[in-house]
Amino acid sequence: MKLDLTNIEQMFPADFSEEESAKAKTVFLKKLSESAHKFYNGKIQTAPKAGIYGFNWFNVWYTPGVSQVSTTIRDDESTSFELSNRGNTVAIVSDSTRVLGDGDVGPSGGLGVMEGKAFLMKYLGGVDAVPLCVNSRNREGKNDPDKIIEFVKMIEPSFGAINLEDISQPNCYKVLDTLREECQIPVWHDDAQGTASVTLAGLLSALKITGRDIGATKIVLLGAGASNSTIARILMLKGANPDKMIIFDSKGSLHKNRMDVKADLRYYRKWELCLATNPHQIEGIETALKDADVLIALSQPGPDTIKPEWIQSMKDKSIVFACANPVPEIYPYKAKEAGAFIIATGRGDFPNQVNNSLGFPAILKGALLVRARKITDEMAIVAAEALSEYAVKRGLRQDYIIPTMDEIEVFPVVAAAVAMQAIKQGVARMEIDYDTILQTVKKDINNARRMTNVLMDSEVIKTPPEKMLNDAMAYAIKTIRG
Amino acid sequence: MKLDLTNIEQMFPADFSEEESAKAKTVFLKKLSESAHKFYNGKIQTAPKAGIYGFNWFNVWYTPGVSQVSTTIRDDESTSFELSNRGNTVAIVSDSTRVLGDGDVGPSGGLGVMEGKAFLMKYLGGVDAVPLCVNSRNREGKNDPDKIIEFVKMIEPSFGAINLEDISQPNCYKVLDTLREECQIPVWHDDAQGTASVTLAGLLSALKITGRDIGATKIVLLGAGASNSTIARILMLKGANPDKMIIFDSKGSLHKNRMDVKADLRYYRKWELCLATNPHQIEGIETALKDADVLIALSQPGPDTIKPEWIQSMKDKSIVFACANPVPEIYPYKAKEAGAFIIATGRGDFPNQVNNSLGFPAILKGALLVRARKITDEMAIVAAEALSEYAVKRGLRQDYIIPTMDEIEVFPVVAAAVAMQAIKQGVARMEIDYDTILQTVKKDINNARRMTNVLMDSEVIKTPPEKMLNDAMAYAIKTIRG
Repeated sequence: MKLDLTNIEQMFPADFSEEESAKAKTVFLKKLSESAHKFYNGKIQTAPKAGIYGFNWFNVWYTPGVSQVSTTIRDDESTSFELSNRGNTVAIVSDSTRVLGDGDVGPSGGLGVMEGKAFLMKYLGGVDAVPLCVNSRNREGKNDPDKIIEFVKMIEPSFGAINLEDISQPNCYKVLDTLREECQIPVWHDDAQGTASVTLAGLLSALKITGRDIGATKIVLLGAGASNSTIARILMLKGANPDKMIIFDSKGSLHKNRMDVKADLRYYRKWELCLATNPHQIEGIETALKDADVLIALSQPGPDTIKPEWIQSMKDKSIVFACANPVPEIYPYKAKEAGAFIIATGRGDFPNQVNNSLGFPAILKGALLVRARKITDEMAIVAAEALSEYAVKRGLRQDYIIPTMDEIEVFPVVAAAVAMQAIKQGVARMEIDYDTILQTVKKDINNARRMTNVLMDSEVIKTPPEKMLNDAMAYAIKTIRG
Repeated sequence: MKLDLTNIEQMFPADFSEEESAKAKTVFLKKLSESAHKFYNGKIQTAPKAGIYGFNWFNVWYTPGVSQVSTTIRDDESTSFELSNRGNTVAIVSDSTRVLGDGDVGPSGGLGVMEGKAFLMKYLGGVDAVPLCVNSRNREGKNDPDKIIEFVKMIEPSFGAINLEDISQPNCYKVLDTLREECQIPVWHDDAQGTASVTLAGLLSALKITGRDIGATKIVLLGAGASNSTIARILMLKGANPDKMIIFDSKGSLHKNRMDVKADLRYYRKWELCLATNPHQIEGIETALKDADVLIALSQPGPDTIKPEWIQSMKDKSIVFACANPVPEIYPYKAKEAGAFIIATGRGDFPNQVNNSLGFPAILKGALLVRARKITDEMAIVAAEALSEYAVKRGLRQDYIIPTMDEIEVFPVVAAAVAMQAIKQGVARMEIDYDTILQTVKKDINNARRMTNVLMDSEVIKTPPEKMLNDAMAYAIKTIRG
C-alpha cells in the first residue's frame, strides 16, 4: 500500500463488485483509523507559538514578566485578542449526542471527531482549536441545553469563537439561538450554517451546469435535522422559492398541518419550515420527487436510504446530494445508474465532496481576523458564492462542482470574502482591507502546513509502519469475502 | 542584548544600586513580556500530533474512518485515553481571581499566565495543556465556586487531569475538595499541592545543609492562602511539629481563639490550622520570629513586606523563603544583609527558585502515565523528596537547594516517583514498572523539546527582532532613572 493511500481501490481483488469495493473501502478506512489513532494516541497536541531562547525567557513568558500581560488585559479586555492566542482560537464544543453517523456516543466518544475537526481547522484554515466534549446531562440524566449554554458563556473569555458541533435536536436550536444572541464572539453551529454554506456552494454550481435558475427550481430535502433545516433557510434567503420546496423528516413531509411539530415548542425552527414550504401539502416522498430538480438528503446513513426508483422519477439532469455520513444514502454509482446527472456526497473518497471541511476553516478564520461578534447567514452565503466561483474559474464539470480540500488557494479567498461581509454588516470589531486579509490568511495557512511538514520531516511526528496499512487492507478484504 | 537574556545585569549602568538593578530587571522583563506577547500573539497553539501523508488521510482522521473511534470509545470509555489525546491532556482551569501577584484580573486577564503554564507543562513535562480562563460569576455578580465545580465536571470526559489555578480564597477550597472527591481524574490545585511540593523540596535540602531535623524545627509561615495552608498540612504530614509552627494571615496569627475564622465555614481549611498549630497563641510576627529556624512567606508581593529586623531576630543559619510573585516579600540581597543563611524566592532570576514549575509538569506527567484517579498528598511528598535528592546528588550549596528548571534530567525522575506512589496507593488505573515510566517520560519530554527547536530552527516560530530587547532595556533604565 502506498503511504498516501492513493491506491486503495487497486488493492481490492479484481472480482469485487462496485458495491463490494465501496464497502471494503469503508471497512479499510475504519480499521486503519483505529490502528492509527492507537499508534499516535490522538491527533492534536499543544505546541509553543513563541520562541524560547534559553531558560531566562521563562521569566518573560511566565512570572515575573507576564504580570504586565495580566494587568494590561485586566485594564482593557480587548487586548486579550492580541496578547494571547485568544484571537486565533476556537472552542469546538459538543455533547457528543449526534456524532456524525453514530448518534449519541457518550461525551468522550466525540473526541476522535472533534480532534479531527481541530486538525482540519489548523491545516486548512490556520486556526487553533480545542476540542471540548462535555457532559451535558443534568441531575435527571437528561441532556440539558441550558447546561451547554451556561458552559459556553463561562469559556467565552478564553476564545475568539465557538464552534458548536454534533449536538442533537432539538437542543441544538436553543443552544445556538441563545448563544448567538448572548455572546460577544461568534457562535457557529457547523452542522447547521457550515453544512448549509458548502451545500449551497455545490448547488449553485450544479444549477449553473444544468442551466437552472434557483427561483424556478423544485427542491426536495430529505431529513429535517439541524443541517437540512438551515439549508432550507439559507436556500430561501438566496432566492429559492418556498412554494417549490418540500422537506421530509422521519414522519413525512413538513407542512402547516403537522400538528405534532407545532405541539413541541422546542422544534420552533422546524415549525417555521412547516409554515413556509410545501403549500400543497404533498405527502409521499415518491410524489414529491416526481419531476423534482434537486434532492438534498441529509438523513439516515445508507447505502439504501434513497431508492433508485425515486431518482428515476426526477426531472432530466437531476441533481442528487446524498450527504449522510459515514455512508451516503445511496452510493454514487447507483444514483448514476438511476439517472442522476450530478451527484454529491459528504465523503472525500467520492467526487463532489459537499463536506463542511471546505467551509468552516476559512469562515472561522475570516471571522476571527476581523474579530467578528457573530457569523451571519449572509456571511455563510458569501462563503458559498466564493467556493462556487472558484470552481467556476477552474471549470465546472459533472464531477467537479465544488473545490476539493487540496485546492489550498480557495481557503484564503473564502476567508477574505467572509471578513469583508462581516465588516459590511457591522459585526466586525476591526476593519481590514481585502488584500491584507488575503495575505494574512495565506501566511497563516502556509505556516500551519509548514509546521506539519517540518514535524513530519524531523520525525517528531513518526511515520506509521507500512504493516499498519497492509493489515487494515487484509482485514477489509477478509471482512467483505465473509 | 543577547537573545538568550543572560546579560541583563551587565546592561544596567554601573552606578545602579542593587535595589535599582533588581527593580530595573523587573521593569525590563515586564516590558519585554508585553512586546513579545504582541509580537507572537500568544504563546501556545494547536499542532498536529499525527501525520498527514496526502489528503486521503483525512478520510482516516475524519469521516468516514473516525467513526470506528467514536463507537469504540462509546462501547468502552477507557479507550478514550489511548485513542485520543485525552490521556496526555490537562485542562488549566482558572477564574483569574487571584492571578500571581495581581489578584483579580477578570477572566481573560489570566490567559497570559495560563498559556505560560501550558508552555511549561509541554516543555518541561511533555504534557499537553489547554488554558481555560472562565467567568465564574453568578447572576448576583459573585464568583461562585459551584459554577467552577459544575464546569469541571462537564469537561472531565475530555481531559486526563485538571489543573486548578489562581482561584481566590475561600472558593478554591470548596472547588478543590469537592472535585477531588467527585471526579475520576486527578484534580490538582497547583497553588496548593504544587507549591507545597516544591517548597517542601527546598526545605528538606535547607534543613539538611543546616543540620536540622524537621520535627525539632520552629517554622513560621507568613500568609495563610491556599499555598501556605497546604504547605503547613504537607509539612506536618512529613513530620513537622505543629506545636512549633505559627501561621499568620493578614489579621494576625492563627490559633484556636481566632473566632473570625471559625465563624466563616468557607474557611474550614484555615480553621483546621487554627486548631492544630500555635498552642501558646503567640500573636505578633516579631515575637513569633524570635529564634525561629524557618520563615516561609507566601503573602503580599514586596519588596518591603518582610522587614530586615525580623530576620535579624531569627536563629543562626536561618532559612527564609520569600516566595510572593512577581516581587518577593524581601529582595534576596536584603535578606542576606539581615543574616539569612539560606534564601529562596519564587523567581527564576534569583538563585534557589522555589517555583512550582519544577513540580507540576512532572507530577502531572507521572499521574497521567498511570491514569491516576487522583494526586494524593503523599504523591506530592515523594515528588518533593525526589527533587531534593536530585539536588543532594548534585551537591547542596547555600545557593543550590533545589534543581533549576534547565536540569532536565530531574523531571523524568520526579514523574516516575509520582507514578510509583500512585500505584502503591491504589489510585492508578495502570501498573507500569519504574524503568518504563522513566523511559516514556524521557522520550516525551525530549520530543517536546525537539518540536520546539525544530519549529524555531525552521522559522515557523520567528526570532524576535533584537530591537525589541534593546527597546525594553532602554525603557527599564529610563524608568529607574526617573
